[in-house]
Amino acid sequence: MFKVNQNYELIASSYLFSTIGKKVKEFQEQNPGREIIKMGIGDAIFPIPKVSVEAAKKAFDEIGTDEGFRKFGGYGPEQGYSWLREKLVDVKFKGLGISADEIFVSDGAKCDTANFQELFGVDVKIAVPDPVYPVYVDSNALAGRITGKQDNGRYPGFIYMDCTAKNGFVPKVPEGADVIYLCFPNNPTGAGIKKEQAKKFVNHAKREGALILFDAAYADFIRDENMIKSIYEVDGAKDCAIEFRSFSKEANFTGTRCAYTVVPKTVKGMGLEGMVSLHPMWNRRQTTKFNGVSYPVQRAAEATLTEDGQAECRASIDKVLNNAGFIRQELGLKGLEVTGGDNSPYIWTKTNRQDSWETFDYLLNKAGVVCTPGSGFGRNGQGYVRFSAFQTPENVAKAMDKLKNLKI
Amino acid sequence: MFKVNQNYELIASSYLFSTIGKKVKEFQEQNPGREIIKMGIGDAIFPIPKVSVEAAKKAFDEIGTDEGFRKFGGYGPEQGYSWLREKLVDVKFKGLGISADEIFVSDGAKCDTANFQELFGVDVKIAVPDPVYPVYVDSNALAGRITGKQDNGRYPGFIYMDCTAKNGFVPKVPEGADVIYLCFPNNPTGAGIKKEQAKKFVNHAKREGALILFDAAYADFIRDENMIKSIYEVDGAKDCAIEFRSFSKEANFTGTRCAYTVVPKTVKGMGLEGMVSLHPMWNRRQTTKFNGVSYPVQRAAEATLTEDGQAECRASIDKVLNNAGFIRQELGLKGLEVTGGDNSPYIWTKTNRQDSWETFDYLLNKAGVVCTPGSGFGRNGQGYVRFSAFQTPENVAKAMDKLKNLKI
Repeated sequence: MFKVNQNYELIASSYLFSTIGKKVKEFQEQNPGREIIKMGIGDAIFPIPKVSVEAAKKAFDEIGTDEGFRKFGGYGPEQGYSWLREKLVDVKFKGLGISADEIFVSDGAKCDTANFQELFGVDVKIAVPDPVYPVYVDSNALAGRITGKQDNGRYPGFIYMDCTAKNGFVPKVPEGADVIYLCFPNNPTGAGIKKEQAKKFVNHAKREGALILFDAAYADFIRDENMIKSIYEVDGAKDCAIEFRSFSKEANFTGTRCAYTVVPKTVKGMGLEGMVSLHPMWNRRQTTKFNGVSYPVQRAAEATLTEDGQAECRASIDKVLNNAGFIRQELGLKGLEVTGGDNSPYIWTKTNRQDSWETFDYLLNKAGVVCTPGSGFGRNGQGYVRFSAFQTPENVAKAMDKLKNLKI
Repeated sequence: MFKVNQNYELIASSYLFSTIGKKVKEFQEQNPGREIIKMGIGDAIFPIPKVSVEAAKKAFDEIGTDEGFRKFGGYGPEQGYSWLREKLVDVKFKGLGISADEIFVSDGAKCDTANFQELFGVDVKIAVPDPVYPVYVDSNALAGRITGKQDNGRYPGFIYMDCTAKNGFVPKVPEGADVIYLCFPNNPTGAGIKKEQAKKFVNHAKREGALILFDAAYADFIRDENMIKSIYEVDGAKDCAIEFRSFSKEANFTGTRCAYTVVPKTVKGMGLEGMVSLHPMWNRRQTTKFNGVSYPVQRAAEATLTEDGQAECRASIDKVLNNAGFIRQELGLKGLEVTGGDNSPYIWTKTNRQDSWETFDYLLNKAGVVCTPGSGFGRNGQGYVRFSAFQTPENVAKAMDKLKNLKI
């Protein structure tokens, strides 16, 4: 009998957001009349930009004709169309020394952050933040980089970087790690990172021959000029860092699906007979196991990078940040300790309960408000919940009103 | 210094179709005036169905509004929308006992056939056809299932199933394999498989505890009633087979990106403590490492499954099959040994040269016709080339005319 990948049996059995979805569905079925306000998953709430709608419709019209199809209807480059990659350099990486062919367009930052570890040896030492976006942990666990089941919220085999109120949710540089996952603005804590803080990681990585995987899916929420949007703002990062970016949260593409990953040609690891560049490896991975992003979706993404598109994106992000500011303020008025919400759509909230899932259940049952239990993101998340500002202003106001007299 | 996945250094350095693309590009640059007719890669040539264009445009209009976005604009189910999965059961698997939740919608059969091996132990024994669609081989090689570099076109560690003129390009059931890749109608040979032939594989797999990965991306090209479109037409296949299907070749979605994989709940492998079902494992894989297919693309795919959509698809496939029949006939008249082209868009052609790349270069230089060198698909492909019928009838006629006086 063929053997399955037994790491699937070692990992916790269900993905965080699936569990939340199931709990909410059950609650809805048991309470058919009750209003539910979802502030759990970080899903976009406002429409995609109008310029994107028009660009995508035009693209579908094109590939519905003989002539148009022959131009753009068939297989596109697995790496993404050059017009999109070039525009990304112009709009997102101007002056940072990134070239268009170092940008790989994909169908999601989740996929890319999950898949990138395929380029490493099975025995590399992985460092992840705690709390952490579960995809970094799960993808490495499934690839065989854990040595046993979770124990007290942590897998043996990984290095966990504590992100706590004490260090302002920016961890210390970890010793002994080969690969360091960072996410700023952070999911779930909402914390950003300043250039001098990021510099410590870059200097360490260069000195020790480590690799930084920098998840900047929320880059466009940054308003504080002291915080970096891209790791490449730090000198030397092009030698030791990969960056993940997305249209999901900036342009409300969560259901439209487009993202991109920057792999500088100068990033190298240890091969069989000396140093090898990750760029051709990722190119090989993508050409072998991926077939490019839908053409009309790439046109929709391109449109977000025009002047009008960027204005629409900014207006939409501003609305989310207004929500976030309001949530932050209201929870603060209740005397709760909160971070995030200023340069991020997430408000990380210390609750008065030991167990995050208890607070989750309490808020769902008492107020119909869905949050994300902090413990789902790691041991340091225990006692916290994450509120997402991806909601309508009306629903945010309603939710904050419902929470007013509750003990969170 | 962090270690890279050194299997990347063991595999052949470039993916077949990228190499062809590069050669054609070079030829174009050196011969700017020359007309090139591409009959290499199996890329769709006719427009996507009109019903799909309309459905996708409507979907983009929807998610461009507040109300529409809140219904369908955000994250969809990673497994695909139920309306699409249910329609697929109705149109493609009627009476075969497949349920909607056994169908996982994805952005490509290439991705799914490449990713599915993640569910197996590293030490499972893989059997692949020779000639073979390179993705099966490369994805398993990168995952560490080879024990060294290619030698005479084959990797140590795999079982190769000979597909030759002698056995009608349907291989013998391989002994000792844990996982058996099959592709019918076959890429590259164009051969189909009859029910009694498939039954031998199913019976063997059930008896030996092996798994069949059945790639049926070209199912809708079958016109011969004795050939199966789905492995589930064979009794018992639901206990031992996964099936990969696609909208790419049927509905010309190569650039639009939508496919689906059938994982029956009854398929099991050996886990840590007994048998485990692959269905929840694939579900875990997809929810952890994938974020669903673009909503408007799923609407476009759904539209192909309506009566009008299916009629448009059939008309488009008929045009490709007419091309294929013509190519088959013309090459036959030249005295060449050909297979495929009757239930498949590919015509597998034995040439008079020992080396396939020589024929490739000869046809490109003499006629401006691009084929695919058979040796790119494996040792048994040496001396063959593959012609793809995905072209306009005009270009096919022109190409066949240009080949008339050439010695292939």
